[in-house]
This record gives sequence, structure tokens and C-alpha cells, in this order.
Amino acid sequence: MTGSIHEECGVFGIFDTNNEYDVTSITYMALYALQHRGQESCGIAVNDDGVISVYKDVGLVPDVFNRKVFDQLGDGNIAMGHVRYAKKEQADRANAQPLYVRHVKGPMAIGYNGALTNGAELRHELELTGAIFHTTNDAEVISYIITKERLTSKSIEESMEKALYKLKGAYSIVAMSPKKLIAARDENGFRPLCIGKLGDAYVVASESCAFDTIGAKFIRDVKPGEIIVIDQNGMRTIETHCGKKGHICVFEYVYFARPDSVIEGSSVHEARLRAGAILAKSAPVDADVVIGVPDSGLDSALGYSRESGIPYGVGFIKNRYIGRTFIQPTQAQRANSVRIKLNVLGATVKGKRVVLLDDSIVRGTTSANIIKNLKEAGATEVHVRISSPPFVSPCFFGTDVDSKENLIACRMTEEEIRKEIGADSLAFLSIEQMKQVPNVPDFDFCVGCFTGKYPVPVPECQECDKFKKKISENK
Amino acid sequence: MTGSIHEECGVFGIFDTNNEYDVTSITYMALYALQHRGQESCGIAVNDDGVISVYKDVGLVPDVFNRKVFDQLGDGNIAMGHVRYAKKEQADRANAQPLYVRHVKGPMAIGYNGALTNGAELRHELELTGAIFHTTNDAEVISYIITKERLTSKSIEESMEKALYKLKGAYSIVAMSPKKLIAARDENGFRPLCIGKLGDAYVVASESCAFDTIGAKFIRDVKPGEIIVIDQNGMRTIETHCGKKGHICVFEYVYFARPDSVIEGSSVHEARLRAGAILAKSAPVDADVVIGVPDSGLDSALGYSRESGIPYGVGFIKNRYIGRTFIQPTQAQRANSVRIKLNVLGATVKGKRVVLLDDSIVRGTTSANIIKNLKEAGATEVHVRISSPPFVSPCFFGTDVDSKENLIACRMTEEEIRKEIGADSLAFLSIEQMKQVPNVPDFDFCVGCFTGKYPVPVPECQECDKFKKKISENK
Amino acid sequence: MTGSIHEECGVFGIFDTNNEYDVTSITYMALYALQHRGQESCGIAVNDDGVISVYKDVGLVPDVFNRKVFDQLGDGNIAMGHVRYAKKEQADRANAQPLYVRHVKGPMAIGYNGALTNGAELRHELELTGAIFHTTNDAEVISYIITKERLTSKSIEESMEKALYKLKGAYSIVAMSPKKLIAARDENGFRPLCIGKLGDAYVVASESCAFDTIGAKFIRDVKPGEIIVIDQNGMRTIETHCGKKGHICVFEYVYFARPDSVIEGSSVHEARLRAGAILAKSAPVDADVVIGVPDSGLDSALGYSRESGIPYGVGFIKNRYIGRTFIQPTQAQRANSVRIKLNVLGATVKGKRVVLLDDSIVRGTTSANIIKNLKEAGATEVHVRISSPPFVSPCFFGTDVDSKENLIACRMTEEEIRKEIGADSLAFLSIEQMKQVPNVPDFDFCVGCFTGKYPVPVPECQECDKFKKKISENK
Amino acid sequence: MTGSIHEECGVFGIFDTNNEYDVTSITYMALYALQHRGQESCGIAVNDDGVISVYKDVGLVPDVFNRKVFDQLGDGNIAMGHVRYAKKEQADRANAQPLYVRHVKGPMAIGYNGALTNGAELRHELELTGAIFHTTNDAEVISYIITKERLTSKSIEESMEKALYKLKGAYSIVAMSPKKLIAARDENGFRPLCIGKLGDAYVVASESCAFDTIGAKFIRDVKPGEIIVIDQNGMRTIETHCGKKGHICVFEYVYFARPDSVIEGSSVHEARLRAGAILAKSAPVDADVVIGVPDSGLDSALGYSRESGIPYGVGFIKNRYIGRTFIQPTQAQRANSVRIKLNVLGATVKGKRVVLLDDSIVRGTTSANIIKNLKEAGATEVHVRISSPPFVSPCFFGTDVDSKENLIACRMTEEEIRKEIGADSLAFLSIEQMKQVPNVPDFDFCVGCFTGKYPVPVPECQECDKFKKKISENK
Repeated sequence: MTGSIHEECGVFGIFDTNNEYDVTSITYMALYALQHRGQESCGIAVNDDGVISVYKDVGLVPDVFNRKVFDQLGDGNIAMGHVRYAKKEQADRANAQPLYVRHVKGPMAIGYNGALTNGAELRHELELTGAIFHTTNDAEVISYIITKERLTSKSIEESMEKALYKLKGAYSIVAMSPKKLIAARDENGFRPLCIGKLGDAYVVASESCAFDTIGAKFIRDVKPGEIIVIDQNGMRTIETHCGKKGHICVFEYVYFARPDSVIEGSSVHEARLRAGAILAKSAPVDADVVIGVPDSGLDSALGYSRESGIPYGVGFIKNRYIGRTFIQPTQAQRANSVRIKLNVLGATVKGKRVVLLDDSIVRGTTSANIIKNLKEAGATEVHVRISSPPFVSPCFFGTDVDSKENLIACRMTEEEIRKEIGADSLAFLSIEQMKQVPNVPDFDFCVGCFTGKYPVPVPECQECDKFKKKISENK
Repeated sequence: MTGSIHEECGVFGIFDTNNEYDVTSITYMALYALQHRGQESCGIAVNDDGVISVYKDVGLVPDVFNRKVFDQLGDGNIAMGHVRYAKKEQADRANAQPLYVRHVKGPMAIGYNGALTNGAELRHELELTGAIFHTTNDAEVISYIITKERLTSKSIEESMEKALYKLKGAYSIVAMSPKKLIAARDENGFRPLCIGKLGDAYVVASESCAFDTIGAKFIRDVKPGEIIVIDQNGMRTIETHCGKKGHICVFEYVYFARPDSVIEGSSVHEARLRAGAILAKSAPVDADVVIGVPDSGLDSALGYSRESGIPYGVGFIKNRYIGRTFIQPTQAQRANSVRIKLNVLGATVKGKRVVLLDDSIVRGTTSANIIKNLKEAGATEVHVRISSPPFVSPCFFGTDVDSKENLIACRMTEEEIRKEIGADSLAFLSIEQMKQVPNVPDFDFCVGCFTGKYPVPVPECQECDKFKKKISENK
Repeated sequence: MTGSIHEECGVFGIFDTNNEYDVTSITYMALYALQHRGQESCGIAVNDDGVISVYKDVGLVPDVFNRKVFDQLGDGNIAMGHVRYAKKEQADRANAQPLYVRHVKGPMAIGYNGALTNGAELRHELELTGAIFHTTNDAEVISYIITKERLTSKSIEESMEKALYKLKGAYSIVAMSPKKLIAARDENGFRPLCIGKLGDAYVVASESCAFDTIGAKFIRDVKPGEIIVIDQNGMRTIETHCGKKGHICVFEYVYFARPDSVIEGSSVHEARLRAGAILAKSAPVDADVVIGVPDSGLDSALGYSRESGIPYGVGFIKNRYIGRTFIQPTQAQRANSVRIKLNVLGATVKGKRVVLLDDSIVRGTTSANIIKNLKEAGATEVHVRISSPPFVSPCFFGTDVDSKENLIACRMTEEEIRKEIGADSLAFLSIEQMKQVPNVPDFDFCVGCFTGKYPVPVPECQECDKFKKKISENK
Repeated sequence: MTGSIHEECGVFGIFDTNNEYDVTSITYMALYALQHRGQESCGIAVNDDGVISVYKDVGLVPDVFNRKVFDQLGDGNIAMGHVRYAKKEQADRANAQPLYVRHVKGPMAIGYNGALTNGAELRHELELTGAIFHTTNDAEVISYIITKERLTSKSIEESMEKALYKLKGAYSIVAMSPKKLIAARDENGFRPLCIGKLGDAYVVASESCAFDTIGAKFIRDVKPGEIIVIDQNGMRTIETHCGKKGHICVFEYVYFARPDSVIEGSSVHEARLRAGAILAKSAPVDADVVIGVPDSGLDSALGYSRESGIPYGVGFIKNRYIGRTFIQPTQAQRANSVRIKLNVLGATVKGKRVVLLDDSIVRGTTSANIIKNLKEAGATEVHVRISSPPFVSPCFFGTDVDSKENLIACRMTEEEIRKEIGADSLAFLSIEQMKQVPNVPDFDFCVGCFTGKYPVPVPECQECDKFKKKISENK
């Protein structure tokens, strides 16, 4: 319900050494588990002894894939898949992944999660050598870079290793050559990526929840900068790019990842409980019930409740059938459209002072509607607690934060926001509190969207400068 | 997650006196809110000054309806809709509702929720007069009965009133003639039906959650036996069939209805909290965390937690994208298929003694899988608490309880069930406790599926006799 | 290319005594051969030892049926199919045939080609007894009549025999009970219907071209008034309604039927050659080449050429891919839309005096466009010869002649029409010549659409009277 | 009905200088007219002031495009389209054209008809520089070559001019840059390409029939080796590659092109009449009727009839609805599958000595079936006349001739073929006669598929050598 913060992808790969599994089905189930990371398009590439088949289209995993497509893809010993969120201007079939290309050493399928900060630059350099691009997707840039390096490399992994020196920004890559499955994570580890085993087969995925779904065992996270190579002889690792302290996106813990995933050793669910508990301590309030905005607000509400002793309640019923394309009727637009998805449970809030936990405030309109609905259902007070700091800056690493003129925190002070959304009180997590949420001591975090300061240089952003000024004026 | 207990329908109607609303869109939104009552097919009939257009098909509401269909249906001043669950053998397009028929006095659209106990008998009587049937649906029988009575009646409501003397069993009917919207509920009130207002427009629906979604105000429940007539002059009521104490299906509170609905003055959510609390008192256990099987088990878990003082936890993550047709891959069948939909949240249960709340046990296989998954995730004990009594008998009133040979409680004692599903302890609600759950003093309840004793005569059931014997042997 | 004269249906049935054939596939192929008789919707009913499955939908045969539907229908020993043309207001799924109904003696599937002249009257009588109608289709009226008679009959064929006393107008019926396939043709034989054998299996079809396609042998036409009963014991005939001299629709020979069909012993192709030859004799002209408007004008052009000695030429190329739904672009509407379907072959007509054969003139706009295109392509003269008389009156027997205000011959004299369409000369067949075209001495013909005089009483038609007056004024 | 000779594409482009037309609709109509050149996939690219939108998919033109797609594409001032036939292994969405790529100077859309003889070689050279390929299509090779040349060229046309030095084989290209429409034809002019005007707009198309359909005026053919550049200032031509005597594919006249097209000044229809006339002179026979196999055999049959004086007759009725995906039922495979598409018109052939004209014999099985059907329908003799020489060698220029082991003429002498297909006599055109058919004195022709000798060097073909030996043994 955050309105317009979107993760941009999820990846999965499997190398089935002993041909024990139907890798196509396994990939399908894994993508289904990763669907929350991208709903615009999805695809699967299957490798049957070097012959790669690909199917991808716009739509959700269960809509794109069906028996006919499974028959077309067949089975194999290696497979990979991708789910993609896309900004509207790129939401077409051509941009779906995995990208499948043929180069001098044979075919390669590739998918990634993240965003290159030097993508436009690399694209232009390639174009100057005569490269043609079929997509507006950085996966194609990455493919080119790897392919160019492949010309002077002995192996796909060597070319991947060389390519990483050129790629800047966030990328968790899964790639497949005729005989190998490769996974790589940028040196900051902006996006999660982990390794598991299913019987003797190796699997890699953006999140560990995919392993649970397919019945695989979690082994470990891919390290920032690490390249994993899996072939018939097993798994090897290339660590030449390792060594930097990682800067994983902290919002993975707040909103993007599924609560049943464990990232860098830390349960996402527990991180959210912790966020609620921190808010209970730093922003206490006298109230009768704590409720959360589904789905990600529920955990922090429980954390707040436990810490504060105020009873936890079910404040909303979410329509089970959203996720499908819902034709917004004109009538609905005039009505309070939030209600179609999320109905207040009057029995919980009527006559009560309510603490409302949510993961973030973007434009403020959804929050305002939710609070209005709560009050209409009889809540006497609504105290809003947000399990992240206010958004003030764009993300350059694969998240689609709303455009800056839409970010309420770029235009208003906290008190103005409180008034705007109609809350009786409002509290955010501070930056420092935010960093305590994941409880991963060995890692640092990217909190650029909350601070405007990023772990790596980012493209120039005139818009940012303009807004930084505005924000400082607001403070 | 109850496996195979299914509600068989939901109905909605609107009479827009002042032409304030796009009744097609309103009906669409209302059906979306009632989708949980039937996922096989759906339909909308729109009445534009006496000209009725209908569209219905197999599929979920957001899949069947789209802009093209909306254009085809147009707008009007009266509309009605239906969502339908169907047993496999009837899951075809022909059986979708609303049924739209033409008779001597003009057209009529009709939809209902329930099941006639004398449906086959009435059908045969009609056939003996030369009637032909296009469907295997009792809605067609009801249409015929109303039509026959219409020949000697002054109005559609008079023929409805006469028809009700012939219809036995459970039925919450919504019907539309060129100028009227009619709603009727059987004299036992087996299935819910309520009245609301949206501005000056009258609305009727199976559940009040539909009113919240469209922004309408709940007025009251339709009384058992009551006929509601809405036309340009407003709403009238016919109470000649009223007077009996209602016997509403108690499982509406346990599982079928949405928690944000209020039925006969009682919040479904609070009823479920109460079920949990009763279980906490009658079947206490020493444990570390209380979790519920989503979605309906979550409320009773919270009730159990509050009463027992054992902390409430989030035990499972349900895939947000189920509800869609998911092609079960062969591989998945070999795997633990429950995991695709429902993943255990290890952080909550690891090393803990768990109390697990669920709404019912049908075959026991799903429960067994869930408990297995909990233990594999590290739960040291799993104490199962079921917020209903064991199923032992079929439903004749519109619910699709599994066939008797599949009902685990027909074959096993409670202790045998406990062992079969691998629980450390197991408790059900008793029949008497079950009746306390809804907290509706003026009503009695149908608990036939738990006792084999029904409020009205039911068709002979050899299977039932066989099973009663078996059950008594088990006790 | 006649614009708006449409046939309204085709039927097929098979009784596979020895279970030699896949009756579903056979029916599918037969419908494909009969597709020209109806393109709006189609359906197949398959009878597997008394269990009848039906599938029907809006669309062409190859679009509605596919492997999935075939699997759903399964195979059986009896099957029947239907292709339907529908006026716009009835072009919905509910009106597709075969109609499948259940009555006191079991299930029945039924399809027909034609139109009842007393359909509305029968419908009203049935409604007065409490009947409800799901469709606006006379097939439902026929089903009711047969079902009513079935109550007091010993067999389905007896009830069919009785029913025929009540049905007035045009009908070639194919019906299927659990154990029998029945075919019946009205006493005037307005529409064709014939019997064939495929191995030991009996087949019935609207046209013999269906037999050629499935490899069956033509046996004979069903006689006007005859009822054919096929069951496991073979074929029987009921002739109580026979005896009248048939009045088959003469336009079947001109336009509706496929040229490779033989109706009442007369080849449709040869009838069209004859039409051309008659025109060559009665309306000769000095010209260089004879061309026909595809497809039905080609045969009469060849007949004209042979009789006149003027060389036959190919005047037009028809786009092979029409028949599909073609989205008429706005641009095309401004352009000459005939060209998209039909391109003049300049090499044939440039600098030539052309004789143009067409089957009919309805509104005149298409003819005008065609003549314009011919002249633009260099034809120096265009002499139009029409292989039928001018349309002046509606058809009440299953053909959708354009509404009378659109019929050019109701508004204009022949000379006015000639000027309007830009022809250098114009000739129609006379009524008497028209009757010579089929060369079926034992039959009379219905030529009501050309004369306003029908072989049986027709519903009152105020419009007709108005137009008759107008026509007489024109003469 | 030739079984397995397939053309591989058609192209179209429009530059609408004055913004008079809806270029998207125009392109759609033109592709519809060119549909016979490729039925596997199709696509349209629309250029709205430099912003290019593309839509393409597997399927026929009227199936792929609909109002929604038109809305998505919008309108513009330049547009181009492509229809594609594809060998099975390439019949996927990725290979559909136009190809749309971005390069250093902006976007480019490109489509072509033909085949490069050095495509594999060029592809490999490009790969050695690090190129990646998304398709197996030579259009991508051509795009790369143009893009590479673009780096050192002042304009798109200059890079096209340079590119042509590298491209060997057959190619009729249409390409679109932000501001220009380019058309180019290989120096042999293997495939047709022509220029027209629609008002002030310029159009290019594979065949002139597309101009007739959209109402455009034919201007002239693009010369072999010519590059046409159309921009806001009008049309220019680059003739640096011109000068060679063209070698157009002679089979364009026999089979591929639509009869209403005019190629190199010669009407395709008249060429086919001429083929029939030549056969009448060189292979006369005493017979009663001349018939043709639809569609391309009809013209040569008319030519034969005119020359010989034997009457022309309609021998077959072709199902109007083919062109759609027809699910071949199992039953049909056992039956004579030709009959589903093509029914013999018994009235024409019964008791007659028949001359049968067809365009070619590939495997001989279709011919054998047709002759069998004619004899079963009563033909006393069937004399087969083929309007081309026997196929003995592959095509390297964009046609999919059957694999050599399937070509009957590679295995048998003419007399053996005659026996195999059951004909009473058989005659082909000789190579020399074939070259007279088009009647284009300034052009030479490619007859490689009939001789194994090609106008340009072709890739090595071991298979060819093997077969040449076999053929010489047969002679």
C-alpha cells in the first residue's frame, strides 16, 4: 500500500547436476515465490544440454506460464528465471528478461536485479563501436560488456570477472551459458542474492523464500563482489571483487523482501518486529489498539504492540484477489478507491485510540484515505508510526521511488505532513534507528533515498539539488 | 486452507432511484468484495429502463469483466450480480448466474445463494408439465416456479410470495424484473442477506463487506422468510413467510464470511476472536507462541493469545498471488505442495512450543503437511486448536463439504486424528461452544454438518446412515 | 459481395452405428464445409452412450474449436453440429446452437436452419402456460413443442411428428436424443437437407458438400415433410407430413449454397452456369470480356461466356484472408473499402468492354463501387448482368434480406438503378427465368423476396404493403 | 496447394509528407494485401516525429492487429510493415520484423525480404568484434552492418550505400530512421520492390497489389541495386550499386506474387495465362475440359483453354475459410486431407477427359491425391500440365523449397512421376519456356531451383552435389 515505491526485479537459477528435477517447474515455482519483487513481466530460460529455450511475456507468473508453454520450454539440466517490475515507459515485451543472446562463443541468457549507475555511459560507449540495442534495459548493456570481454577470455566466468570492473551500481546477476550457471553480486551488495541446495542441485535466488517454496536448503548469501560459477563439477567462487563492506538497501528489510526471507543472516520478519519495537520506545503513545497496514505494516504493528503492551488488533481486511488487473471503474475513482482493496474492520477500531503502523509515506494520499476510513469507522484517535524515515531523494539502484515533486517529505515538514494526512500524531524512524532495524553488524546500508547521500557516486541529478534545497528550507 | 469446504455463492443488487450511480461499476466492485463466496463463475445483469443486458462467464470477477464488457452492458438504473462456486461437474458457462429468462410478463434475471432440498423433486414435477431445462442449476427451478405463479399473480412480488411456499431449503435470492429489484431469504435464514443504502439507492448483498467496499451504509439484515421489494417508490417488505426462529449456518462465522462483515448484528471477526478465546479456556496448553493458519485461523489465534496470555506470532507467509489459476507442475506434486501457497516463518516458530489455530480439519492431509513443515522449521511442539467441531455429515444447504469417505472425523477418533496429523495435542470446539461463537441470542444455528441433525427435513441419504454408524463406533 | 443477404444456418448430424469414426472430428470437418451458411457462431453436441456434451461459442469453426475443446467433448457414437448466422441483435453466445435441454424423458440437443412464421405466436402460447425462455431463438420454441408432445408420445419421433403439425414456416431440423438422431424438413422444403452414408454410419447435412469433405456418399435429399429417424437399428422414415410439392428457396441456387453441392438432384454450379447462359440469351451485348464478381458471380460469368462466345476473364482478385474479423480502419472508410477485399485485375479489363456478372443487387452501393473501380482500371464499358430478379420484399424463411428502405429496387426503376450504379447497361433475370435456373422439374420454388408472394401465409407486414405501393409506382 | 514452397516475406513503407493519412491504418491495409507473402508473423513500426513505436507478433495481420494495438501504436508521419514466413525453427516472436534497434545515431526500424548468401559469414565476423545477436534473422545482421557503417557516414543513406557492398544475396529492404524512409534492392533484384504515390505521400511495397488496396498509384519498380531515400524534401535515388542486369526470381510470376500485381512491367496474371498457352502449344492433348488447381493454377488453365480451344471449367471449390489455423483432427489424417480444403466439382469433370493445370509439383503427394479425387468424381482421363520446370535444387534467396530428399524430381524421371501421381500424361515447362513466361525482355531470371545454377555464388551445398548426381542418373 505504499503507493509508488517499487522493487525492480527478482532472479533465480538452478543447476541440476544429476538431472533429478524438472528444472522448468522448479524455476516456475521459485518465480511464483519471488513474484512480489516484480509483477510487470517474467520469463524462464531452460538449458537442455546446451540448447537454450526462452519464454517471457508481460504478466504475472501464473498468467504467462501454462502447460503449453511448459511443453514448448521442455526440461533441461540448467534453468533460470526472472520477474520484472518496470516503469511504465519500459513495460513492454521487448524489455522482459531473461535476455537471450547469441555471441561468438555461443548462446547466453541473463537476468539481473538492480540498476547500473553508469548504464547510459556504457551504452553510449558501446554504440560508438557500432553496437545496436534492442531494449532500453541495462541487461543488454551487461550482456555486451561480458561478450566483449569474452573475446579475450578463456571462460565465461573470466569475462564476467573482467566485466565487473566496468559495471558500476547495483546488480545481482544470474547468467547461463551452454554449460554453466553464473551468479554475481555487485561489490556493495545493494540487492540480495543467495545460494541454496536442492538435493545435489545448486540454486541461486534473490531471496531465501524461493528456496523454502521449492524445498531447497539455504546455504549462504552471495558475498558483495562475489562471482559464483556452477557447472557439472560443482560450485566455485571468484572473489577478486570482494572486500568492500556491503551496503545493502535497507528498504529490502522494510518493504521489498518477503518476511519469511532471511537476508545477510537477518530475518526480515524479525527486522520488522524490531522496527515496531524501536518506534514503541522512541514514539510512545497512550492508546487502545495497535494495527498495521497490510501486508508489511502488520509485523511492525506486532513489534510495537509487544514492546508497548498495547493490544495488537486486526485493523483491515485486504481483498484476497488483488494482484490481478482490476479495471478501475470511473465510479470507483469518485469513491474512496482504497476501500476496494482494504476495508477497515470496524469491530477493532470503533471507539478506540488507534496506533497505525505503516512502512512508509510517499505522497501521503493513501495515508490520508486510510486515516479517513479509520475515523469514519469510529476510531477516536489515529497515531501514525512509520517504520522508515521520510523519502527525500531518488534511488539509483533499482527501486522506483516516486518522482520528487510527488514526495510529500520534499514539500512539507513532519508537522505539515501530520496535518495533511489527518493523523493525531506522527513519527518516523530516524536514519540511525533505521540502520538498527536489520541487525546485521557486518554490513552497512544504503539509505540514500532517506538522505540523498549514496555509497557510490551517482549520475548528476539537477532535480536532486533543487529538492535538497527545498528540504533544508523545510527543516 | 480448509481443503474442500466451499461456499456456493454470493449475490448483490442495486436500485438506483435517482440515477446517481454507474450501477454496473458498483455491482462489479461489490462482486469483487464478495469474490471469496464463489470463484468459479460470475455475472452481472443491468437493467436500463426495462431492457436487461447480461454478461457472465467462468472466471474471477476481474478476469471476466473488462472495459469491453462494461461497454456492452452499458449503465442502467437497476443491476444485480452473482459470484458462484460450483462443484466440478457443474463448472460450466451454462450454469453461471444471474440466470436471465423471458416469460409471459417480460424478462427476469435471478441469482441465489443456497440449495433447495426439494430441487430435484420440483424439477421433476415441472418436467411432467413439459418444462425444458437448460441448466442443472436450481436457479432455473426457482425461475420456473416464480413464472408459473406469475400467471395468476398481479405482480412479481406476489408470485415470489407464492413461490416461497413451494421452495424448501436454503435460498437467499436476488431477482430483477423490468421495474423492480426483489430480495428474499428462506424462512430459516440459512444464508446471510442484508440491506443497505448508497445515497438514495437501495442495495442488497450477501455480506455487509460489499457495502463497505462501495461506500454504502448497512441498514439491516433481511429477516428469515422476508421478501424485500424495491421499485421507484422505495422499499416495501412482505413478511408472510416470517416468524420462524432463524437457523443460520454457523460455519458462515467460522470460515465463509469475510471477517469485516457483520451478520445478524455480530461481527464475524469478533466471533472468530471468541472461538479462539473459548478454545484457550477449554483446551489450554503450556506454549511459547500462538499462530494461525491464514486467513481464517489468524483471528482465532489472536483470540487464543489474548485469553491465554501466550504471545501471538506470525507463523506463515501466504503467497499474495494465489487465487489465480496456478498450473500445478508435476514436480510440485512430488514436493510438499502446501509450501507453494504457505511458507512457515522460521523466525517465529524455531525452538518454540506452538499453538496452531485453524478453522477446521477436513481430510487431515493439509493439517499434516502444515504440522510437518512447522516441525521442520524447528517447532518443538505443535498443539492444534480447531475453531469448529469435526465434520461428520454433508451439507444440504449450499456448502460443498467433502464426500464422507474423505472426512477424517468419519473414520477416526480425535486421538487417531491427532496421531495422523502429527500434532502434540488436538482440540475441537464442542457443538455447544460452537453455538456460542456467533453471539446472536435471537438466532438458532444450523450445525448439521457437525451433528447430522438438520433444522429441516433433508433428502434421504444412505451414505449418511452408513457413516453415522461408523462415527458411533469410533466414539 | 452481396452486402447484406445472409443465410441463417447449417446443420449436420452423424450416427456411427459401428463406432468406426471419431464423430466429433467428423462433425467439426462437416461444419467447416458448411461454414458459408453461418459465420457468427457454431457448436457441436456429442453423445457418448446417452451422455451428451455440448460446446458452442461465437466465432468461426476453426476459432471456436481446438484440441482443448475436443478433449472436453470427447468422442461418442452420435454427434451433431450447427453453424449460425445471426442478426446483430441476436449475435450472442446464448443464441448459439445446438440448443441442449433436459426434459422429462432425458436430454435433447437440437439445431435448425430456417425460420418459423408462427414462432412469436407459439412462444406466446407457451409463455401463457408458464414457460420461460433463455434465448430469442426459435430452436427453443421447437424444443418446447417437441417436449410438450413428448409427454403423451411413446417416442421422440412420435413427438416430433406431432410437433410438426404446430410448426409453420421453414425448418430443416437435426435433433439428438440419448439413443437417436432425428432429421426433419418442413413440408415445403424451404431449406435443403440431405442424407448420406460414411461407411455404415448415417449422416445428414444441409448440403452435400459436407459429405464430400468427410468422404461420405450422398444418398438422397430428405423429402419435404419427411422425418428421418436413425438409431442402432438403422434408418426409418416417417412420411405423414409429406405430399406437398416443395417450394425450395431459389436463392439457395443463386448464392447461399456452395457450388459443389447438389440440391434436389441439381448441381448448384450448373444452375449458376445456366443463369449466366439465360442472361446471355435474354440480355446480349457486344463486349470483349465477361467477368464475374467472386465467388458466386464467377460461375454465371462462365455460363454467359460460353453461351455468348465472348471470352471469359478473371476480373478481380479477392483477398484470400477475408473471412477473418478485419478491423476496418477509419482511413479505409474514407477510402474505397471494396478494394481491401476485391482488387480489379487491370490486365483483364483495360481498354475492354466488360460484361459483369453478379448474383444480386441489394443497396447498389457495392455494385457502384465495383463499377467505379473497373472504369478506373480502364474498362471502357461495364454491362451488368444479375443472376436473379431485383429484391423487393422480405424473407420470412430464414434469410436476412436487408431492410426494405435499403433495397434499391424498392426505390428505383431498373433504369434508375443502372444510372445510380454507373453501368452502361443492366439486366436482371425475370421471375420465370429464375425458376428455370435450378432445373428441378418436380419442385416449385419460393421466390417471395422477388415478388412479395409467398408459398405460405406470412406474418402481417405493414412495411411490405407500403413498399408494394412504392414499387408499383416505380414500374 | 504446392505443399511446401514458401515465400519468405513482404515489406511496405510510407512517408506521409503532408500528414494527410493515418499511416498506421494504411500500413495495416497494405500488409493485409501482402499477407500471401508471409503468414507466420507480422509487424508495424510507426514513426511520430522521430519517436518510433513497434508492434509485432506471431499470427496473421487481422489477428495480430486490433483497435487496442492501433491505439498503442498511434499515428505518425512515417510507417513501415512486414509480413513474414518462417521455417519452423524460426517461427517465434523474437524473429518477427520490423526489427527495431537503437544505435549511436538514434533508432532504426528495418524489415527485408530475401536471404543473404553471406549471412552466416557476416554474423561470425560481427561476433568476433563482440556483437551479440537476439535473433537468428539476417535482418539483425543487416542492421549491424548499416550501424557499423553509420559510425563513419554522414547519413543513414550513406551507411546503407556502404553496407550494400558487404551484403551478398537477395534483399529488398525497407528501413526507417527518425526522419527518413529508405528502400533498397539487391543488385540482382531477386525479389520485387516498387514505388508508388498516395496523394503526396510516397509508398514502397513488395508488390503493386498493395498500392491498389490502399488506393495508391504505381510509379515504378525500384531498380536492382537502387537505394531510394524519402524524407520531408521528397524522394532521391542512389544508383552506385546499379548496372547489373537483374535476375528476378521467376517463381514470383508462377506462384508467389498476387496475379493483380505488375512486376517489372509485366502483369503476373498475364504471365500465368502465357504459361498455360505455352503448355497448350508444347504439350497439347485431346480433352473435354481444362481446369486449374486454385488459386495459381486457375490462370494457367484459362491460358491453356484459350490457346487450345478446349473449354475452361471450374474443377474445384476451395474452402473460403482456410488461411486460419485448422486443427487437423486425427480422423482427417486417415481421410483424404486434401478434401477439407479443396473439393472436386463433380458436375465439371464427370465423364470428361480433363486437363489439369498446377503451378508445380514438390513431393507429388498432393498431386496424387488431387488426381485420385478427380477420378473418383468421374474424370475419365487426367492430363497434368505444370506451369514450371521440376524442382531439383534449393533456393538460397529467400524461398523455402522443400528439403531435397522430399523433391520428387530429384528421385524420379518425369515418366516415373507421372505414374506415381496417377496422371494419364504429364508435362512441365522447360527452362527456356519458363523464361518466356514473364515477358520482361530487359531482365534475366533466377531459375536456380530448376537448374542448380545460380546467378551469384552460393554457400557450399554437399546435399546439392549428391542430388545433381542422382538427377543426371535419372535423365
